Amino acid sequence: MSELNWQKIAKIAQEHRDASIRHVEPSVPEVPVQLPFDRTQIPKYLLTPEEVLITETQPEDLIVSLAAGKFTSITVTSAFLRRAGLAQALTNCLTELLPERAIARAKFLDEYFKEHGKPIGPLHGIPISVKEHFAMKGLTLNAGFVSWWDKKGEDDAHVLKILWNAGCVFYARTTEPQSLMHLETSSNLYGATTNPFNSRLTSGGSSGGEGALIGMRGSCLGLGTDIGGSIRSPAANCGVYGLRPTSYRIPTEGLSATMNGQEQIVPVLGPLSTSLDGVKLFMKTVIGAKPWLREPSLIPFPWRDQESWFRASSSSEIIRIAVMWDDRVVRPHPPITRALLEVVEKLKEVERVELLEWEPHAHDEAWEIVSSLYFCDGAREESDAIEASGEPWRPLSTFIIKDNPNVKKLSVDEIWYWTQRREAYRRAYAKIWNETGTRVGDTGDLQGMVDVILCPVGPGAAPPLDCARYWGYTSQWNVLDYPALVFPVTKVDLEVDKVDNGYKPMNDKDRYNHELWQSGPEKYKDAPVSLQLVGRRYEDEKVVEALDIIKDRIGLPFANFV
Amino acid sequence: MSELNWQKIAKIAQEHRDASIRHVEPSVPEVPVQLPFDRTQIPKYLLTPEEVLITETQPEDLIVSLAAGKFTSITVTSAFLRRAGLAQALTNCLTELLPERAIARAKFLDEYFKEHGKPIGPLHGIPISVKEHFAMKGLTLNAGFVSWWDKKGEDDAHVLKILWNAGCVFYARTTEPQSLMHLETSSNLYGATTNPFNSRLTSGGSSGGEGALIGMRGSCLGLGTDIGGSIRSPAANCGVYGLRPTSYRIPTEGLSATMNGQEQIVPVLGPLSTSLDGVKLFMKTVIGAKPWLREPSLIPFPWRDQESWFRASSSSEIIRIAVMWDDRVVRPHPPITRALLEVVEKLKEVERVELLEWEPHAHDEAWEIVSSLYFCDGAREESDAIEASGEPWRPLSTFIIKDNPNVKKLSVDEIWYWTQRREAYRRAYAKIWNETGTRVGDTGDLQGMVDVILCPVGPGAAPPLDCARYWGYTSQWNVLDYPALVFPVTKVDLEVDKVDNGYKPMNDKDRYNHELWQSGPEKYKDAPVSLQLVGRRYEDEKVVEALDIIKDRIGLPFANFV
Repeated sequence: MSELNWQKIAKIAQEHRDASIRHVEPSVPEVPVQLPFDRTQIPKYLLTPEEVLITETQPEDLIVSLAAGKFTSITVTSAFLRRAGLAQALTNCLTELLPERAIARAKFLDEYFKEHGKPIGPLHGIPISVKEHFAMKGLTLNAGFVSWWDKKGEDDAHVLKILWNAGCVFYARTTEPQSLMHLETSSNLYGATTNPFNSRLTSGGSSGGEGALIGMRGSCLGLGTDIGGSIRSPAANCGVYGLRPTSYRIPTEGLSATMNGQEQIVPVLGPLSTSLDGVKLFMKTVIGAKPWLREPSLIPFPWRDQESWFRASSSSEIIRIAVMWDDRVVRPHPPITRALLEVVEKLKEVERVELLEWEPHAHDEAWEIVSSLYFCDGAREESDAIEASGEPWRPLSTFIIKDNPNVKKLSVDEIWYWTQRREAYRRAYAKIWNETGTRVGDTGDLQGMVDVILCPVGPGAAPPLDCARYWGYTSQWNVLDYPALVFPVTKVDLEVDKVDNGYKPMNDKDRYNHELWQSGPEKYKDAPVSLQLVGRRYEDEKVVEALDIIKDRIGLPFANFV
Repeated sequence: MSELNWQKIAKIAQEHRDASIRHVEPSVPEVPVQLPFDRTQIPKYLLTPEEVLITETQPEDLIVSLAAGKFTSITVTSAFLRRAGLAQALTNCLTELLPERAIARAKFLDEYFKEHGKPIGPLHGIPISVKEHFAMKGLTLNAGFVSWWDKKGEDDAHVLKILWNAGCVFYARTTEPQSLMHLETSSNLYGATTNPFNSRLTSGGSSGGEGALIGMRGSCLGLGTDIGGSIRSPAANCGVYGLRPTSYRIPTEGLSATMNGQEQIVPVLGPLSTSLDGVKLFMKTVIGAKPWLREPSLIPFPWRDQESWFRASSSSEIIRIAVMWDDRVVRPHPPITRALLEVVEKLKEVERVELLEWEPHAHDEAWEIVSSLYFCDGAREESDAIEASGEPWRPLSTFIIKDNPNVKKLSVDEIWYWTQRREAYRRAYAKIWNETGTRVGDTGDLQGMVDVILCPVGPGAAPPLDCARYWGYTSQWNVLDYPALVFPVTKVDLEVDKVDNGYKPMNDKDRYNHELWQSGPEKYKDAPVSLQLVGRRYEDEKVVEALDIIKDRIGLPFANFV
């Protein structure tokens, strides 16, 4: 690396990306020089009507069309390659496209289909986009560090092998931030990924390349990872679905990152998708492949979509939803609270939904715990990886590492101390579930427990670049290891979402967030507003089923995202 | 503690124990001054015929008798209190009896039964013995350290609350070794616990008080813990059943020990019992109480005894058993190999059993990993706790801490390194399961996988005191976090179990073990010989069901243990 400075390496990386996009056939259309802030509509004018139709079809429907032979895999793959190329031009969300191998794969699948008259597997022909974080044999694996630019995947990540066996097509790799530890996506290799709905805002992160690509409909199903909000922040910011599963359900073997061997706060892998069914499809396919046989850290139980979670957990089919309006640390911006209110008002109108209030328990303490455990080597690995190339620290790397008072090199005793604090906090939170609105039955069992918590995903819609400095609404559920599902609800509406001049912030974090909105709500124009549904540990299926029922009953989302 | 030296504290502890036994009514009979090495038969001559009958009844039958009103809870409790008192005199297995609270509880249960005409719960009236390691409100909690002698339980351990709610009676607390990290049971508070079948040998450990008490039939169901063999070693040495469950299935909240917060090698809690059904009863009752609602580290899935594990995992009901004769580090003594051979010969005669050979994979490496992770603070907590009172280091504490080259104070990086080594080892072992005797089906699924491994529990029967210096046959499954079930098979038979003068030991550990036998097999006279059935992670139910079928088909055990 002696003769290459970081700028030259970044140039090589970007040239590689651009060259990969040039190999798409037919070539990706040029985008206009003058662009609106909301870029989601541009591809509709530049692609063929069939390409628009295909790329705006939800994955569960695309599968049916592919399995019926209505579309070939080549047609579908080509449409997504072209729209992904446009998404790159419009949001800077890719590290590379894989046109040659994707088309070769599609061709193979089409031939298989022709020969056997049936799909090769449950994901036959579905294009899946993947964060650069996941190893693919022979391709880059840099975790957002310039100094890691020449690391290559030695084998495909475990989850990719499963999806491949199910019949999918890999065609796009997406951006991630320096160190992977931002709720935005900017690196010195590729620059910043922007929000499809408002280019002045971030796409979120760290799976922000996925968020932007799927928000642009350059993908219908993509893979991200989440240790503090990295699936949910981009899903929320870009108006798509995203699930942070409970730990040890989805394989993580083959991810490239720092902190390997750290198990106190476990990074998880999960889907982002244009539909809730896309999320289900991913979970069901991956868990159905019994990944625990090859990755023994995983817990061996099936995806339990046969059970009715609500019938099982109470005497009738009532869903008990507890609403958390605010975490009492940082108050959400007006559009978030409005979205919650709109959902709650609709839920009040439907039958068999019981609404309760969720009292947050010491969410500031949860942040102290999680941020003490994230970098328990004092972030030595991250610092080394950044400094090895001479690349500058991105502002949010500085924020989460250098300016974070909880980042310290811990001793064994200190790790044990924080681990015990984490467990005590998890038990305290479990107690709240056990006691919120419950009755104790004759045999001492708990009846009428809260099924899911409905809450914000962040303290606002997507912020401007370098401003995502409050993780609490997402990292809270990483500390607790709860499944958390993000779904689009509405968009910022400057007609109704006003500033609040009377509010007195509770603390510095609250003040920072409050002023982001207060100083100019117009910068958030058109930004998606999403919410989060959270369940108890390992109740991933229940959370998904709850959202399915809620969507069905109240007709979510309330705005148009395509 | 200034005015008390360790000898005085030990005296206080022993006097407390003796006083508690004196409170049993009718009083515990005196044991003869001259005793044989095999002490299991003594109680039969000193108790009433009804007491002998009750205490030699297996827990599943005792439950039926109690639920039918054939025995009162007082009658049953009193019988076990008296036999436990004898077991103390014969094997030194108790830290205290709890006659007052046990009889009060039994009285309450009898009144409940009289009033309601039915048992209070699934364990109505069953006496359960508990290792001192488990918190009971207001009682000692010393983990075998003299300096911890005045620690008291603040609340009952979670598992005890569940068993209490199910109707059990707590009546006896049992010994454990200094630091809990021996495969024997000796402390400076209570001395050494001896083997019921041969008082020159150890009962095993660290749950060796339970092993001896249950082996003596002073208990039919007891609770131990296991981080390297501490349930299985005493179960094996004392001729009873013992299960080390997979981690995070049984609550561990309320155990007193060093290394709280250490999660790399997780200590687990499990049952020892006079019967396999006793093991099942415990697992089913505890897991059926949904302990994960209160202890969120636990994995929320039921005890799956409704599934046929063997029908489910293959096209017919064949059980595939892989036999591991030897771990290639330390060769088992002749009686162990003979017991394995006898079981295998019988299994060959029955239908629908497929026998394979299990090729051990780097079991020496597994020990390096596990023993590097046990004491990753360099055993500072243990050393401090021993040295605080001036008590001497017991030989096996010195062995596992001071003489163990893998005990080092680790840095964060080193902990991560060893954690990654552990995961890599677990994956390598999973690969062997996936490839041993399997066929790959049409859809890429694995068919005909090994169901269980049949193997030794240790490199010999119970050794003389201070000689249990090879953990590999049990700690192996802690590294892998596999469920492992111990069951009695036969006894040492000096007529057939001979020395082998031609054997050349493979290494120092093997030599030490070889010479233990070679130097005088007669010291092992009558010692129980047990074996171990091991399953993949979280297949606890499968292991239990497999043993049930095996027992049924070949008529285990081959010797009489009562």
